[in-house]
Amino acid sequence: MNNKTALIITDMVNKMDFDGGDDLLRHSLSMVDNLISLKKKVKEKGVPVIYVNDNFGLWQDNASELIKECKKGRGEPVVDAVMPEEDDYFIIKPKHSGFYGTQLDILLKHLKVENLILTGVAGDICVLFTANDAYMREYNLWVPKDCVASEKIDDNDNALQIIERSLFANTRESTNTSIEEAFLS
Amino acid sequence: MNNKTALIITDMVNKMDFDGGDDLLRHSLSMVDNLISLKKKVKEKGVPVIYVNDNFGLWQDNASELIKECKKGRGEPVVDAVMPEEDDYFIIKPKHSGFYGTQLDILLKHLKVENLILTGVAGDICVLFTANDAYMREYNLWVPKDCVASEKIDDNDNALQIIERSLFANTRESTNTSIEEAFLS
Amino acid sequence: MNNKTALIITDMVNKMDFDGGDDLLRHSLSMVDNLISLKKKVKEKGVPVIYVNDNFGLWQDNASELIKECKKGRGEPVVDAVMPEEDDYFIIKPKHSGFYGTQLDILLKHLKVENLILTGVAGDICVLFTANDAYMREYNLWVPKDCVASEKIDDNDNALQIIERSLFANTRESTNTSIEEAFLS
Amino acid sequence: MNNKTALIITDMVNKMDFDGGDDLLRHSLSMVDNLISLKKKVKEKGVPVIYVNDNFGLWQDNASELIKECKKGRGEPVVDAVMPEEDDYFIIKPKHSGFYGTQLDILLKHLKVENLILTGVAGDICVLFTANDAYMREYNLWVPKDCVASEKIDDNDNALQIIERSLFANTRESTNTSIEEAFLS
Repeated sequence: MNNKTALIITDMVNKMDFDGGDDLLRHSLSMVDNLISLKKKVKEKGVPVIYVNDNFGLWQDNASELIKECKKGRGEPVVDAVMPEEDDYFIIKPKHSGFYGTQLDILLKHLKVENLILTGVAGDICVLFTANDAYMREYNLWVPKDCVASEKIDDNDNALQIIERSLFANTRESTNTSIEEAFLS
Repeated sequence: MNNKTALIITDMVNKMDFDGGDDLLRHSLSMVDNLISLKKKVKEKGVPVIYVNDNFGLWQDNASELIKECKKGRGEPVVDAVMPEEDDYFIIKPKHSGFYGTQLDILLKHLKVENLILTGVAGDICVLFTANDAYMREYNLWVPKDCVASEKIDDNDNALQIIERSLFANTRESTNTSIEEAFLS
Repeated sequence: MNNKTALIITDMVNKMDFDGGDDLLRHSLSMVDNLISLKKKVKEKGVPVIYVNDNFGLWQDNASELIKECKKGRGEPVVDAVMPEEDDYFIIKPKHSGFYGTQLDILLKHLKVENLILTGVAGDICVLFTANDAYMREYNLWVPKDCVASEKIDDNDNALQIIERSLFANTRESTNTSIEEAFLS
Repeated sequence: MNNKTALIITDMVNKMDFDGGDDLLRHSLSMVDNLISLKKKVKEKGVPVIYVNDNFGLWQDNASELIKECKKGRGEPVVDAVMPEEDDYFIIKPKHSGFYGTQLDILLKHLKVENLILTGVAGDICVLFTANDAYMREYNLWVPKDCVASEKIDDNDNALQIIERSLFANTRESTNTSIEEAFLS
């Protein structure tokens, strides 16, 4: 029934070992339970889950190696919480946008997906720019504000406002919104 | 000498006949003189000028037809002020980013350009998303804050902050910055 | 009814002033009447016609300027024969494939096109590589062999064989094939 | 010294369980020793080796899983012969061209590569179309004819002729050509 929708989880497998990473970690931990609940809820409806994750300079690593490496960093509790399952997809991206230099668009077409639920970090960088690339490719967007985090709360809010205003995305919270409501234009 | 640099002028050929277009017009008029001065200054140094402009749904129009049509709208005074010259390039884009579905990247490589001066409207939509696509393609970026406008001043400021923070762009004003200073990392 | 189909005309606006251009001209003249008949026939059914044409190094020219310039060359009789009409689309491409650095894919989605009729020159270069890009983007392909030409007849035949074998395109002649038959299975 | 060059190995990790796969296997076995020698020779000079390999419909597999699966098929002896080493790159592609929906172009820029040695199978499909995408992105090309195979020898020869003629690639044999000679325009 909801095979037209996919859940995208951005850059949650993350060492967070950079300046400001402690802020990003704190804000990620605040929302990770929402994200896990959302993932559980949509998987029950048959929605595919696609991790789209930075390579963090590890051009030769596959998903398991990347996860292992990221668990060595500050972000370990987040990585542990969001661990991909066997039937999830995992795409490694080399740059900000999940669509740039990856098979994401081709996989979405293969899965006949038209609606994207975008989640993850950082709201004001990779989520924002992935959202724009998704919008230009004419996907419908739901970016639940309680499943997105950035280093600074103000920057996260500003990014969500741009996503809502310029990309016509729904940003309603995941906890009180069904997929049907989210994509009911 | 500065053949490594190009000046990009985004969406200034614009009817501005949408909701909020009066605000965008007012803010564009406030900065258009800076933009024209900058254009004059860099052209004297041999920097190519590339207009990258929305098709506004006119898929069959070329540059002159698009300009003619846009002059029928509220944005006429801006169009008159920034009219492209014979030796400028004019690229029509179908979506937000100047790089998506256009020859911009190929032209820049043909011109051996590595540094981009990004200007125009709207700062929080097309300039922002073009900036990100430029950053992912590893161009150095100068987005002079006095040559960019949005409907709302706050949104323009927020977008410039994202551009500066996430894309490592210089946003110094055009009036007191030389090309050399702007791209001196 | 046939709004799902588009006719692509590749590089027929062409000076043909290069080595081997006389051969390409001769073979183009042999097929141009077929192409014009096909264009007339499909336009009557509401099929959009999209010229996808090399810039031949003229990065600043629009369609009319490019046509004017190409008419100065050996290819003039072909240009005269295939002149685009007011309601046709004209896309200028910077490289071999019609999809690379152009808005072709975005325009086709805007027009809700799923079936492409690929025609023009050279069969073993731009038509071949545009065909592959179309196939990877999951368009159905009809490349009518009597509407495609190359410098050498053998090379044209080889390219058509690759197109048929590797890209699962129909290559039946235009003169005895309807759109419905061409895209049946 | 040769960090400007990369060796691309296309689709050699391959079940070859399709119609014609026995022919492709036989022709691959005829050239795989040349390819291994070439790989050894260029690695000694510091040239990075990049496997670019079809996903064969296995969208969720990483390199090791894909290799394991392909070893179950007819192509096992080829897979065994070309097994990637720890320091090689492995890119999984979803379609014909190694550049479409992959990070290949971004990785090559990251590695500062300008010259590509293209090898693998099938010469008249994935090697041909990867070669064109490489040419449009302005890489210099060497496609050593003794390191490329297709189902049919004639089709392989035709594809190599197109690659040589239309893409200005060198197709000299690997056994008697050095990297320097190959890319000496």
